[in-house]
Amino acid sequence: MTFPAHLLEGYGRYLNKGFVRYKETHERLAVYGQTPDVMVISCCDSRVTPEGIFNVGPGELFVVRNVANLVPPYEDTEGQHGTSAAIEFAVNGLKVKHIVIMGHGQCGGVKAFRENANAPMATGQFIGRWIKLLEPAAIAMACMPVDKADDPQLAMEYAGIRQSLKNLMTFPFIEAAVSAGSLSLHGSWFDIGSGELRVMDAETQRFSTTAPEALATAG
Amino acid sequence: MTFPAHLLEGYGRYLNKGFVRYKETHERLAVYGQTPDVMVISCCDSRVTPEGIFNVGPGELFVVRNVANLVPPYEDTEGQHGTSAAIEFAVNGLKVKHIVIMGHGQCGGVKAFRENANAPMATGQFIGRWIKLLEPAAIAMACMPVDKADDPQLAMEYAGIRQSLKNLMTFPFIEAAVSAGSLSLHGSWFDIGSGELRVMDAETQRFSTTAPEALATAG
Amino acid sequence: MTFPAHLLEGYGRYLNKGFVRYKETHERLAVYGQTPDVMVISCCDSRVTPEGIFNVGPGELFVVRNVANLVPPYEDTEGQHGTSAAIEFAVNGLKVKHIVIMGHGQCGGVKAFRENANAPMATGQFIGRWIKLLEPAAIAMACMPVDKADDPQLAMEYAGIRQSLKNLMTFPFIEAAVSAGSLSLHGSWFDIGSGELRVMDAETQRFSTTAPEALATAG
Amino acid sequence: MTFPAHLLEGYGRYLNKGFVRYKETHERLAVYGQTPDVMVISCCDSRVTPEGIFNVGPGELFVVRNVANLVPPYEDTEGQHGTSAAIEFAVNGLKVKHIVIMGHGQCGGVKAFRENANAPMATGQFIGRWIKLLEPAAIAMACMPVDKADDPQLAMEYAGIRQSLKNLMTFPFIEAAVSAGSLSLHGSWFDIGSGELRVMDAETQRFSTTAPEALATAG
Repeated sequence: MTFPAHLLEGYGRYLNKGFVRYKETHERLAVYGQTPDVMVISCCDSRVTPEGIFNVGPGELFVVRNVANLVPPYEDTEGQHGTSAAIEFAVNGLKVKHIVIMGHGQCGGVKAFRENANAPMATGQFIGRWIKLLEPAAIAMACMPVDKADDPQLAMEYAGIRQSLKNLMTFPFIEAAVSAGSLSLHGSWFDIGSGELRVMDAETQRFSTTAPEALATAG
Repeated sequence: MTFPAHLLEGYGRYLNKGFVRYKETHERLAVYGQTPDVMVISCCDSRVTPEGIFNVGPGELFVVRNVANLVPPYEDTEGQHGTSAAIEFAVNGLKVKHIVIMGHGQCGGVKAFRENANAPMATGQFIGRWIKLLEPAAIAMACMPVDKADDPQLAMEYAGIRQSLKNLMTFPFIEAAVSAGSLSLHGSWFDIGSGELRVMDAETQRFSTTAPEALATAG
Repeated sequence: MTFPAHLLEGYGRYLNKGFVRYKETHERLAVYGQTPDVMVISCCDSRVTPEGIFNVGPGELFVVRNVANLVPPYEDTEGQHGTSAAIEFAVNGLKVKHIVIMGHGQCGGVKAFRENANAPMATGQFIGRWIKLLEPAAIAMACMPVDKADDPQLAMEYAGIRQSLKNLMTFPFIEAAVSAGSLSLHGSWFDIGSGELRVMDAETQRFSTTAPEALATAG
Repeated sequence: MTFPAHLLEGYGRYLNKGFVRYKETHERLAVYGQTPDVMVISCCDSRVTPEGIFNVGPGELFVVRNVANLVPPYEDTEGQHGTSAAIEFAVNGLKVKHIVIMGHGQCGGVKAFRENANAPMATGQFIGRWIKLLEPAAIAMACMPVDKADDPQLAMEYAGIRQSLKNLMTFPFIEAAVSAGSLSLHGSWFDIGSGELRVMDAETQRFSTTAPEALATAG
């Protein structure tokens, strides 16, 4: 079981470039610890890297990545919720100021959920259970549609992000921090093919492009 | 609740540089979907970005990030294990060839586990339960120590990686894929201050540096 | 099924010597009942007899002996905890003034716990569960090591004694009696080969020899 | 919390006498481990020391001591039965040839059980549950009395021993070993005031004195 050679080669490049660029930041982060202002909850998808998309250096984003960027509702049971643990760590421990749910197009987890009705076995025992977290999203989407229904995959991706934002508010310590104005929650969605980032308006619950041309000029 | 401005600025830089660099890759990945060979299970820590450390582009790493880069043991219960779902997605769905557990120094999750004995309340209800996944690691470490005990934090970080590798093998589909030679499992550890990467030898269970000088030259 | 002859022979010797020596004590103990000041929680091991090691006569030690001299944590469940029952009997019924946890070297229960990670089946269904009581000891030992790690068997024996002392304090009536100054708890460890007795310092949690030469002179 | 001085003094005497007497035995037991032929299940009572009563040296008796010398029935549950664990250790691990249940007169545990009907609170939460193990003994005693009823405390002590012997036979590995002739089970009872030992006849289930005069002469 040899360690993948291309990863070691990549690590060699990193040591010469990426690490060198942030050498002092790394040394400082090692001495003083991390103090990120932002937590991102993103998908495991290999095409969506939050640090890349937001072009940030080490120490800036506290990142959870799970299938379909889902937040479970607050539950005071004995179960082990890795995402809830990370949220608690970020909010109560690190005192982050923002939580960003980062969805994306062509999400395999959302697709599995949508196909699960037809072929539940195909989604596997763990995936099958995990994506049940999207059920309230589907119900909300069916009962009170926000988006045009011409792209049900996209509509479900959006609905999943909205549901995760709702679920975040079920955590007492998040509700308190949001009420106190020390924490804000955000929804966003990334398009793999075009690189377009869409941000959700908290009022309308709608997603709109962040005007990449303007940004590109400003960048 | 305005979206954090510095993230939008970073996104503008990304669109002009990172995305442009991988534009064709992104277009291809949008059309054909993702086919990563490697899954990385890493920590949420803001100082450890797998794609950065291995200097890989989009589509190469399927990434789970949870507190302390933990893999729960296989359990056929009704609970929702996000990490197990991601593993199933990667191995049975994407047919990855490698799973890399990526630990790191100064891990806050490991530290919380170590301090939990003295101050269980301080670690919170979700963190407190989540890090119980480290209990078998601590037991194994106490019963059959592999490392010198002069740095219990480091020793526990290593022990956690070893335990996650053990837990991976409790998944029947992983055991089968490893036996068939189509999947291999790897342990690694990253030092935040120096950028040093250590890789675990599967035989001895020991971690050693990947000789950064040689790599840097080769890079 | 004849009663073992060598035990009956031993009983004959006892009647002529041991019993005769303590005849009046026995008669008094039969009339007035037992009033021991000390409870000892020791191992079943055939090489460790508390009454022998402390050279005391009848009526002095209230003795629990279980595998690996373990005290379970206080639990208000329906389960039947023989050791907890004995503790309650000793503290609330007999009003003992001291509880001594008596560990020892080469403890088979500790060894079984240590080997359980490799060969869980070998330890049997009851032993396997019972020695799980050592898990918090192993965790504490891994997280905050008190002893040098050059002898993990000894370190685990010590850790088990410390954990049993901690668990004793989880019983409300013990915590109350200790706070009131009417009960004190002690850790000790016996070396089978040399007869050396080590006593734990309550402050440092460390074990040190009770200076057998001095004792032998004083004895 | 100073270690009780009279115990350290007793230990000094032990080092000079008891240990010296068995020094070579101790050294051998440390090197080769324990190989006792007999397991004794006895009471915690400070007035009943199996090694004393059977006048045996180190390495001869594997001893469990719990309140009222009880054996729970075999139960394949998750609970932690310390006595069952010790039995498994002795029979499957050490391959003992005999298990001796050693009851005694004026047993406080039996007394608590008998008084529990009148004053259940007085027996405490752990004792109260533990002595429920005597319920089948009481039922058997009421339904099919073996002994004259003029001494209900003694009759219950006997009944408890019989029940523990019955319960031992519910362990599959004990039933198998007894059937194979490699293990035998024995009941005995000790009188604190007179030192008299009574042994149970496996056929009649009755207890009779082991003729101390004859033994004393032979001893």
